Amino acid sequence: MSVVFNEVLASIRGVEFGEQVTVVSPCNLYECSIGSYSFIGPFTEIQKGAIIGEHCRIQSHSFICSMVTIGNHCFIGHGVVFVNDLFSEGRPAGDASKWKATHIANGVLIGSNATILPVKICEGVTIGAGAVVTKDIKEPGIYAGNPAKKIR
Amino acid sequence: MSVVFNEVLASIRGVEFGEQVTVVSPCNLYECSIGSYSFIGPFTEIQKGAIIGEHCRIQSHSFICSMVTIGNHCFIGHGVVFVNDLFSEGRPAGDASKWKATHIANGVLIGSNATILPVKICEGVTIGAGAVVTKDIKEPGIYAGNPAKKIR
Amino acid sequence: MSVVFNEVLASIRGVEFGEQVTVVSPCNLYECSIGSYSFIGPFTEIQKGAIIGEHCRIQSHSFICSMVTIGNHCFIGHGVVFVNDLFSEGRPAGDASKWKATHIANGVLIGSNATILPVKICEGVTIGAGAVVTKDIKEPGIYAGNPAKKIR
Repeated sequence: MSVVFNEVLASIRGVEFGEQVTVVSPCNLYECSIGSYSFIGPFTEIQKGAIIGEHCRIQSHSFICSMVTIGNHCFIGHGVVFVNDLFSEGRPAGDASKWKATHIANGVLIGSNATILPVKICEGVTIGAGAVVTKDIKEPGIYAGNPAKKIR
Repeated sequence: MSVVFNEVLASIRGVEFGEQVTVVSPCNLYECSIGSYSFIGPFTEIQKGAIIGEHCRIQSHSFICSMVTIGNHCFIGHGVVFVNDLFSEGRPAGDASKWKATHIANGVLIGSNATILPVKICEGVTIGAGAVVTKDIKEPGIYAGNPAKKIR
Repeated sequence: MSVVFNEVLASIRGVEFGEQVTVVSPCNLYECSIGSYSFIGPFTEIQKGAIIGEHCRIQSHSFICSMVTIGNHCFIGHGVVFVNDLFSEGRPAGDASKWKATHIANGVLIGSNATILPVKICEGVTIGAGAVVTKDIKEPGIYAGNPAKKIR
């Protein structure tokens, strides 16, 4: 039995912070950018290249991947997960050039446990808790369900 | 590039514990109440004012918000998330007086990765894994899907 | 008010590791087996008896329970949760002899926030992000939704 393994500690490294950002540790944030007055909850992971705007709340247990851009005054609920790799060749892309981007406009609210595939979401949108967003959202409104549809 | 930020450590503070409670750290529990003989898994967050009964299991990765009351002998699976803010004015309530309460009766079982909006759930109910509960549940049975419906 | 409780620290204990495994802490891994060249992300829990193959990625926030076997070259996304207890008597099984097993074949890809009930999934399968898999999957393809159905 081997008991040798490489242990890396989740940490905050190489992050560009605006002013008065609060982070609740432990979390794993690396080479991303987090705007002024934003709040990052515990047990979160934010990857290289992700951009979080100002006055945002990123709640506990959320995962924000590379190639995600989030505007200002956004609310990202607990356990929200973003996706950038659609396994379009039947396996992990392996190469960042095949990942796809997500753009979340200013003021968008994303309910807890939602799953966000690589999409654009416009201003004035609320995503219901537990929704799975699979397509671009170009009209303000409330979207929920799996896959997410406009409900109001 | 600013590298200054406020780091707060997830912790257990101001919690009212019954007897023989077990908590697996790290977790972020504050100003809540946890009944005797209950178990709280790792990577959980339980907010101010939440009440957990006796002989409960709150599994890893769960998030229990303010204004949630959970009875005795309940099972809350892994990654279960509760919601108290319906963004009813198109933005976070901002004010606790606009949050809504959840009541989970004795013996209710909530499957992993379920999402629970502000509702009442009666005794004799099992919520399936991955369900999204959007309405009060007043009849015993098994409920699953998004939105959750009675399946048995 | 009691403020006495048992605090246990999430840790890596009694795990059988292959060669060159990387683990990002904090995580809670115990009495499981993790094959060579696999990667385990932060905020994960892997229980006693779970078997992870070689060259796998188990991403952040995932929970892998007892009686789950995962093949080689599998990708388990962020926030994926496995289930082994169907509460078939209306309460937690209480006894491991009533838990049910899950088998994930080589090369299977499971999207983030998916929920996997006790099933067998064959080779050549991709599970969409946010899916809830409730039945065995015996044909290659892409499965998504709640409950998961074949979409391609």
